Amino acid sequence: MTVDTVQAPAPGAAPGRLMRAEIKEQPAGWNRLLDEGQDAVARAAAAFRAADPTQVVLLARGSSDNAAIYGQYLIQIGLHLPAGLATPSVHTVYGRPVFPPRSCVLAVSQSGASADLVRTLAAAREAGCLTVSITNDPDSPLAAGAHAHIPLLAGPERSVAATKTYTSELLALWMFTRLVSGRRPEAPELAVLGEQVLERAGAECERWAERLSDVRRLLVVGRGYAYASAREAALKLMETSYVMAQGLSAADAEHGPVAVLDRQTPLLAISSHGPGTPSMASVVAAARAAGAPVEIIGDGTLAGDSIPALLPTDVPPDLAPLLEILPAQLLALELAVGRGNDPDRPRGLNKVTSTV
Amino acid sequence: MTVDTVQAPAPGAAPGRLMRAEIKEQPAGWNRLLDEGQDAVARAAAAFRAADPTQVVLLARGSSDNAAIYGQYLIQIGLHLPAGLATPSVHTVYGRPVFPPRSCVLAVSQSGASADLVRTLAAAREAGCLTVSITNDPDSPLAAGAHAHIPLLAGPERSVAATKTYTSELLALWMFTRLVSGRRPEAPELAVLGEQVLERAGAECERWAERLSDVRRLLVVGRGYAYASAREAALKLMETSYVMAQGLSAADAEHGPVAVLDRQTPLLAISSHGPGTPSMASVVAAARAAGAPVEIIGDGTLAGDSIPALLPTDVPPDLAPLLEILPAQLLALELAVGRGNDPDRPRGLNKVTSTV
Repeated sequence: MTVDTVQAPAPGAAPGRLMRAEIKEQPAGWNRLLDEGQDAVARAAAAFRAADPTQVVLLARGSSDNAAIYGQYLIQIGLHLPAGLATPSVHTVYGRPVFPPRSCVLAVSQSGASADLVRTLAAAREAGCLTVSITNDPDSPLAAGAHAHIPLLAGPERSVAATKTYTSELLALWMFTRLVSGRRPEAPELAVLGEQVLERAGAECERWAERLSDVRRLLVVGRGYAYASAREAALKLMETSYVMAQGLSAADAEHGPVAVLDRQTPLLAISSHGPGTPSMASVVAAARAAGAPVEIIGDGTLAGDSIPALLPTDVPPDLAPLLEILPAQLLALELAVGRGNDPDRPRGLNKVTSTV
Repeated sequence: MTVDTVQAPAPGAAPGRLMRAEIKEQPAGWNRLLDEGQDAVARAAAAFRAADPTQVVLLARGSSDNAAIYGQYLIQIGLHLPAGLATPSVHTVYGRPVFPPRSCVLAVSQSGASADLVRTLAAAREAGCLTVSITNDPDSPLAAGAHAHIPLLAGPERSVAATKTYTSELLALWMFTRLVSGRRPEAPELAVLGEQVLERAGAECERWAERLSDVRRLLVVGRGYAYASAREAALKLMETSYVMAQGLSAADAEHGPVAVLDRQTPLLAISSHGPGTPSMASVVAAARAAGAPVEIIGDGTLAGDSIPALLPTDVPPDLAPLLEILPAQLLALELAVGRGNDPDRPRGLNKVTSTV
């Protein structure tokens, strides 16, 4: 999807109409990708198994960079392969592309059009890496430039704030790693759980947004898989509600940033049940000690008084990020609309950001 | 340095006394490391050359994580080797350590005591990686646990906000990559330039802090080598002045976060002359269009009205980060003191943060 194919919201349309519709489309989009996308993912996985890379380098910007962080955890934990994030400017600014030997370079991008990613992927291919791309536009340069391409099949994303393409990127990465490791990418309950989370969060969201209506600063914290969710939640809040939000791993938060927490600076903890719970509990305790309001997107494991558990308890940890982000997307939307902003057209942003 | 050897500031001492003293010590500390530290760095570099790793994984938290990002650029650009940052929680939370074959794992830590880093380094060593550590405490577990250790020789750091150990970490990484590539780690002008930058910034800093005295939110942006500086400047401002500051690459800033800029939310651009200048100029233009105040730590290349050029123009790009951070450290100090905070004892933080 490039700028000129995106239909701008009609003048006078309700603010956030596109973002709201695209948030709701997600579970159906997941089922479409699980079903119709499986062949393309299987081809990419077969190429990966044939090349037998010893590690993966992920290449992304913006929301897709947060999806890439999820992919980094998934590949390390699920495939037991080292995985890192590329620093595109080493190539595009300093002209020194460096890729590990026998690596797979995996580009993740909604538009598939960002110039720095296109150039870096081309350099990786020239250096002998296996290249795989995940984009929502099968005609984009990143789709054409890779050995294998996985289309998101999410339909055009018209709101500037990425929502459905973000979770589709997560799901494509999950399907890919499942197939690489020889397991079928089946998640029959996922869309049902997604609908439930959207319903629960929808019912809470207005109250929640009202509680946070005056907030201008916020820390968002997660651990492990939820680190990606924390970053993406913060990015949504920044770009739609103009809240200065920072998404951190619970461990990094304790190395300094927790000092900003105060009565006007809440903590948003994203925590499904899992091995990261103890370190999340430690940050929540620090926030409470600082008198900071604590909001939790969780399954009830972390004690939180403010809002009921929004997440189910029986989700595999590697799929939890698809569900965790849904309440944050709705919160960003409601906060923005409540403040009189139009999250479909945030100030100062375009849908496709072309960085070099 | 562990908690019990740190002498707390005397009750009634001037707020920020320790941080101010430690900021000023930096140029002398650089000369000490360049001189007395060279043998240890040379031994680590010899071990690296003997092991001939095909890539480097950096392992760090907090300020040292920002030094590690500088190291990531330095190793990629200077040694033409792939370098990435470890995700310690994959090991300590999920119990799945994964290291690339024939890699060097390089741990950077002021205290050398953080439990997750110690465990991850031990796992890397067991997996057959070359392990190198850079710490300010030669008796720390990270120093003892690595094949080669580089001491920072910065003297005890007593302020909770790391300043002198941060720039010493940068310099140790610079010396290490120089020696690995067979070049002598000589920088005879560096300390002199550091003194000059401290003097210039010191003269501006009170005015500068006054201009920002009401600021509660700030974006800090850099590109390439200066990305590490942007992150470290943001961390200093967060932990001493409780400003919600976020340090971003210029490219990532344009993918959403620039939307938060407004009349009350300034942009701090960190930009020495270099190939990243065009993308920095683009973010500065976006900030001006949003009516956001723009502050620049630069050498005059980026047009900035607010403060005179604080940096020299004739510094090699890979050494610029040592100088760029000095004005930001002073700003964090003056802002904190001006607000009645004691940056030597930020609320909610301890000197050694032990995350697991």
